[in-house]
Amino acid sequence: MDKISIIKLTVITKTNLKRVLIVGAGFGGLRAATALRSEPIEVLLIDRNNYHLFQPLLYQVATAGLEPEQVARPVRGILRGQENFRFLTAEVEAIDFPARRVITDRGDLTYDYLILAPGAESNSFGLPGIAECALHLKDLDDAVQIRNHILRCFERATWESQNDLPQAWLTFLVVGGGPTGVEMAGSLAELVQYLRSGEFHSMGLPRARIILAEMAQRLLPEMQTSSSKAALESLSGKGVEVWLGRAVRAYDGFKVEFDHGEYLEARTLIWAAGVSAAGLLQRLDVPHGPLGRVAVLPTLQLEAHPEVYVIGDGAYIPAQREEALPMMAPVATQMAERATANIRRDLRGQSQAPFRYKDPGRLATIGRNAAVAEIGRLRFRGFLAWVVWLVVHLIQLVGFRNRLMVLISWAWEYLTYERAVRLIQGRLPAVSEAEVPGECS
Amino acid sequence: MDKISIIKLTVITKTNLKRVLIVGAGFGGLRAATALRSEPIEVLLIDRNNYHLFQPLLYQVATAGLEPEQVARPVRGILRGQENFRFLTAEVEAIDFPARRVITDRGDLTYDYLILAPGAESNSFGLPGIAECALHLKDLDDAVQIRNHILRCFERATWESQNDLPQAWLTFLVVGGGPTGVEMAGSLAELVQYLRSGEFHSMGLPRARIILAEMAQRLLPEMQTSSSKAALESLSGKGVEVWLGRAVRAYDGFKVEFDHGEYLEARTLIWAAGVSAAGLLQRLDVPHGPLGRVAVLPTLQLEAHPEVYVIGDGAYIPAQREEALPMMAPVATQMAERATANIRRDLRGQSQAPFRYKDPGRLATIGRNAAVAEIGRLRFRGFLAWVVWLVVHLIQLVGFRNRLMVLISWAWEYLTYERAVRLIQGRLPAVSEAEVPGECS
Repeated sequence: MDKISIIKLTVITKTNLKRVLIVGAGFGGLRAATALRSEPIEVLLIDRNNYHLFQPLLYQVATAGLEPEQVARPVRGILRGQENFRFLTAEVEAIDFPARRVITDRGDLTYDYLILAPGAESNSFGLPGIAECALHLKDLDDAVQIRNHILRCFERATWESQNDLPQAWLTFLVVGGGPTGVEMAGSLAELVQYLRSGEFHSMGLPRARIILAEMAQRLLPEMQTSSSKAALESLSGKGVEVWLGRAVRAYDGFKVEFDHGEYLEARTLIWAAGVSAAGLLQRLDVPHGPLGRVAVLPTLQLEAHPEVYVIGDGAYIPAQREEALPMMAPVATQMAERATANIRRDLRGQSQAPFRYKDPGRLATIGRNAAVAEIGRLRFRGFLAWVVWLVVHLIQLVGFRNRLMVLISWAWEYLTYERAVRLIQGRLPAVSEAEVPGECS
Repeated sequence: MDKISIIKLTVITKTNLKRVLIVGAGFGGLRAATALRSEPIEVLLIDRNNYHLFQPLLYQVATAGLEPEQVARPVRGILRGQENFRFLTAEVEAIDFPARRVITDRGDLTYDYLILAPGAESNSFGLPGIAECALHLKDLDDAVQIRNHILRCFERATWESQNDLPQAWLTFLVVGGGPTGVEMAGSLAELVQYLRSGEFHSMGLPRARIILAEMAQRLLPEMQTSSSKAALESLSGKGVEVWLGRAVRAYDGFKVEFDHGEYLEARTLIWAAGVSAAGLLQRLDVPHGPLGRVAVLPTLQLEAHPEVYVIGDGAYIPAQREEALPMMAPVATQMAERATANIRRDLRGQSQAPFRYKDPGRLATIGRNAAVAEIGRLRFRGFLAWVVWLVVHLIQLVGFRNRLMVLISWAWEYLTYERAVRLIQGRLPAVSEAEVPGECS
């Protein structure tokens, strides 16, 4: 099919209004769209998916605790009432800044203002086999793939033979001791415990191992050492082996190589060791900061193209580099508010104001009844931190229905210990394919 | 990978007990497994998926009303407490009756008694393009694929151009006026109405058409004419165009050809016009009845292999052919009870007893507040029939959690009219792939 020409797209253009084009329906993009709801402009949002994804709970989808539909909501549904809002699904391929035009796989779109909020992607730092053979956790399909893979490992291990050591099928390595890795390992330990005790107990399987490897000497390096210690204790109590000071060098789908020449046989490697800005941002011909993030002015504008704003995981403010901005939802939403306020100021002929981050604190959960929290000067852990974590995440979920469904799922799991969503979805691949995770060949 | 030899599988075999091997975890297979829970035998169930699927609600998954996880439950979870039960995921490829051995893609398994309950599959009667280009509705992946496709048609239609008539993108043809086709068309009409009114209303789209084509001169041919009339009225009221006496001859993903040489441009054809016994049964070297069903004795045994029972959609009893046995859950579960009772009798040296079907009645729903019911001599329709339909289906769903989640989803939809599960899941295919439904090339 030929690309649809720009002329044809005037069908969906209110030509007399200025257009703010927003790329990405994550926390930043959504907030930007709603913040502009009362302006006499056209707000056009593009995303490759037709839904907003609540990434902080993605690991619970990957470990069969929540359903994919519970952590995602259709964008059109979220912004159903907003008159000046349009949405299109498309993959942005490039941006023609001089022509103020975004090039997508579906056609081109022009803009008066552009807000880039495409988020981050998994970063394997060029390590051999990680991109292809490891499992990553950035989108909904990743999460379903991890769930499928873990459950399939158990199914596969039941068909054990002498030639094929089933221990490798039941060795689950999580790499990266940040919040994602810690949450993933804790939740995975609970799932495996549930499966082992009631469903595969008579199948003659070996012990399942869950290993969390972190390059640094402590878990949660961005948090206080007391939180690191608490996380380590909680995970050990759940039977997770925590390997500190251990970096992965390569993986081939069967064997993990560590930096001191050690090896581990594991059919599962979940990569939570790093992210970088979305590929789209990395490919732009603009100044970049670390991890492929785009360097912006404190006003979040591109210096050479002041009508372009970059927000969220992919933005880097060189002038404020002493303040490390984590790739977290609060940064994205606060940036969205700043960028849209600056667009409103520009429309009214006012000057641009700089972004200032207000840190709401940090939370990480390690599973049932266990979490660590750092809010302002407060540090707490255990059951109270876990309840705070639950409430904060429920509130942030978009849509009452999703909140209700997630709450019921959590209550169910809490009372029954059941990980209910244990379906291996998707056409079952042939045996040879199922043997290797990811796109590893 | 080489096939795992039989010897290796002794690991999972209690060698001193007789083994009942059940193929298929549908209504029949599950009921058979639970019916044998107190017997001193080994019950081994095989299915290609690790979950039991509640097929009667599959069309609601396809039309974004329910989540896939709500109509399916992991088999290991359902039978968690049953001591004599084992489960394996595998695809059965063939059966070696003389050796009493089932050949799967994972290895071979022996049996003392075999219960075949693999169900039915979509039957395109060899019509050109139907198998490849039409959408079918037999398993969970089919349902998600239909949901993805319908939503993608709307997304795609928003990128309309002069060369590409968007009407074909918004023309949805359902073929087959049985309960599945009627339910699908009614539910699809409600989904389309919801999308059109609130989410795509400003996109300049043409009217969406939903057409239900049935070869016979009335809908629901297996039910009373009053029910047929009620279904026709309800569907017309929802804006569905019902074409009676119209048979499809071919489809290429773009254009439907009807038997009188008429054509319809439609990018969606949902095939609900026929099923046949599962391919496994059709390939067996045994006597067959119509639609590839296996001919069995009134005791449900194969005449040549009395240790083999066939139950459910794939069974045909020539001696009782005057009684048409529909491919429905009640037939499968009643047959499962007969077959397992006969196995128990055989173990005790008693003679086999014949199967007798007790018809619990028929129900079909056409959407919100509308259904038709025939229970014994009772005939009713409208709101009351709809409530009966809801209650019957909720009760039949396996597991309290699924019942609760489905009940909430239904209540939510009833109160808000929202079809909440409108996610296009799965890696977004390239533009050219997304253009054609199914595996049509």
